[in-house]
Amino acid sequence: MRATVMHAAGDVRIEDVPDPAIVEPTDAIMRVTRACICGSDLWPYASMEPSETGQSMGHEAIGVVEDVGSQVTRIKKGDVVVMPFAISDGTCQFCHEGLTTECVHVGFFGNDGMNGAQAEALRIPYANGTLFPLPVGEDDALMPSLLTLSDVMGTGHHAAVVAKVAPRKRVAVVGDGAVGLCGVIAAKRLGAEQIIIMGRHPDRIALARDFGATDVVSERGAEAVERVKELTGGYGAHSVLECVGHGESTETAINIARPGGAVGRVGVPQHNEIPASLPAFFGNITVGGGPAPVRAYIEELLPDILDGTIEPGKVFDRTVDLDGVPDGYRAMADRESIKVMVQP
Amino acid sequence: MRATVMHAAGDVRIEDVPDPAIVEPTDAIMRVTRACICGSDLWPYASMEPSETGQSMGHEAIGVVEDVGSQVTRIKKGDVVVMPFAISDGTCQFCHEGLTTECVHVGFFGNDGMNGAQAEALRIPYANGTLFPLPVGEDDALMPSLLTLSDVMGTGHHAAVVAKVAPRKRVAVVGDGAVGLCGVIAAKRLGAEQIIIMGRHPDRIALARDFGATDVVSERGAEAVERVKELTGGYGAHSVLECVGHGESTETAINIARPGGAVGRVGVPQHNEIPASLPAFFGNITVGGGPAPVRAYIEELLPDILDGTIEPGKVFDRTVDLDGVPDGYRAMADRESIKVMVQP
Repeated sequence: MRATVMHAAGDVRIEDVPDPAIVEPTDAIMRVTRACICGSDLWPYASMEPSETGQSMGHEAIGVVEDVGSQVTRIKKGDVVVMPFAISDGTCQFCHEGLTTECVHVGFFGNDGMNGAQAEALRIPYANGTLFPLPVGEDDALMPSLLTLSDVMGTGHHAAVVAKVAPRKRVAVVGDGAVGLCGVIAAKRLGAEQIIIMGRHPDRIALARDFGATDVVSERGAEAVERVKELTGGYGAHSVLECVGHGESTETAINIARPGGAVGRVGVPQHNEIPASLPAFFGNITVGGGPAPVRAYIEELLPDILDGTIEPGKVFDRTVDLDGVPDGYRAMADRESIKVMVQP
Repeated sequence: MRATVMHAAGDVRIEDVPDPAIVEPTDAIMRVTRACICGSDLWPYASMEPSETGQSMGHEAIGVVEDVGSQVTRIKKGDVVVMPFAISDGTCQFCHEGLTTECVHVGFFGNDGMNGAQAEALRIPYANGTLFPLPVGEDDALMPSLLTLSDVMGTGHHAAVVAKVAPRKRVAVVGDGAVGLCGVIAAKRLGAEQIIIMGRHPDRIALARDFGATDVVSERGAEAVERVKELTGGYGAHSVLECVGHGESTETAINIARPGGAVGRVGVPQHNEIPASLPAFFGNITVGGGPAPVRAYIEELLPDILDGTIEPGKVFDRTVDLDGVPDGYRAMADRESIKVMVQP
């Protein structure tokens, strides 16, 4: 079968690889019907050291189950399923707490040698826990929105939950990528009174407004901080969604938080220090977040997608087949596209 | 009157200074009946640049109100009151939310030129909000414990609240100073199942056990992390109270937190970065905390002191008069004393 393999920064290839097969009795094989390219795929796309074997890419998908191991009971052949970006066994203490990305058997698709979903098919470990069966056909019109349940919608929701978004709260979203845009949807869905999107790309800002953003701040650094304070009665936002992962964006996130506020960070951090320790401390600001337990959030978010209340699928502004994946990476890296859907 | 003035690292003097007087109609004048020396006073004691005017010291006290301004209505002459370490007006949005240390008029006694409480008397701004009247006489036997409501007990409680201590939680307390010890009291009071104290001073450890600590870890760094994981079923503590403020202790705090856990930091940070951003992120660990709104916590904690349920006053192992204050600083800096009470 064919799959996407990254060999070095900027070097993404579509290659013939062995077909996936059941290895453990808890495995399933999923034929990929929709996948996509993630903002986090752009980190290795910018910096990966050359590798001969390469890394199989892609961690967000919907597909049809083609085969299951002998211990797979919750999923059967023919099911249309969401594949969240992380493996979770569904039985450990963390899974029971809804923290599926802290599962004792966690693994991340398309990372550290694990197979990726920008491919015709892949093996799914712990299929009972990992996969979520959908009540729709494989070509349902809602596919783009349903696909976001595998990562970006759940990740934006996680940022909002960790940032304690609630009715009457003022919210700021740092980053206008697909996750930030889904963060706007999540903030609106959780009842935020004000939603400030921080970004500067006109197409993304327009979509943010469509999703419920009430204000736009296109400044950066100290000017951005000042502007958010102006917009929030002088004190900052109760809830800040950090959807980038840079030191600078995290510093901004902390500095625009209202005293007693919370920052939910979901952008993969690119530094091993959280900046602005003193402002965070003296403002009693909480900094939380991490890999979103999107598997656990599907149950809550799915009904709103099925009934059209939220339409996160609008973040996809381009669709490619497998051959188009390398150019999809380029388009996202060049900010030509917000998010690329892959139809293998 | 006489007051404690710090002129440089290691240079603490008792000086004659002008008597305090009402300046604003919201002021009160308080005669100090009990004060104390705080672990945070040891930071300037270790590092203060020489200053001719010096800094008036002390931010924890109980006293008797001697005079009030025309707008002070909730406090009257003769009241025995707790003076929390921070000024709060009691009327702003942050005070209404119980975040008195984020009050729009906040100020910290014995800091940045503000008068301190290691003195015979001092002026109390925003007395209506700042002071809390006690239902006891000025020489009540409970004075040591009541005095901790001005800072250390409320601060330990804040660490526990931010770290989400609750019944059935495993808790670790980093730091065996007076705040860490009060953190143990707070964790027990909030129902923790396991309380690990991290420290190495036998007298403090003994007191921690008396307060409810179930385990002791005296290792540091990577060894401490391993030991806490062993004691907590392999995954770390749900709630970690960071009661030191060093980069190293904060890193330890994050690394001993269970995935999905929370770190409540109340040690004044000595660095402008929070370390271990990646472990915190990949563990979905929340880092919060700051100056404790002890004024707001008095109502909750006072009954437990009055009925003897908690005895935080045991952290005082030495009492001095004003002349003994300089040696009190030395004794605390040398770890000869856990916490020194001052009876002016």
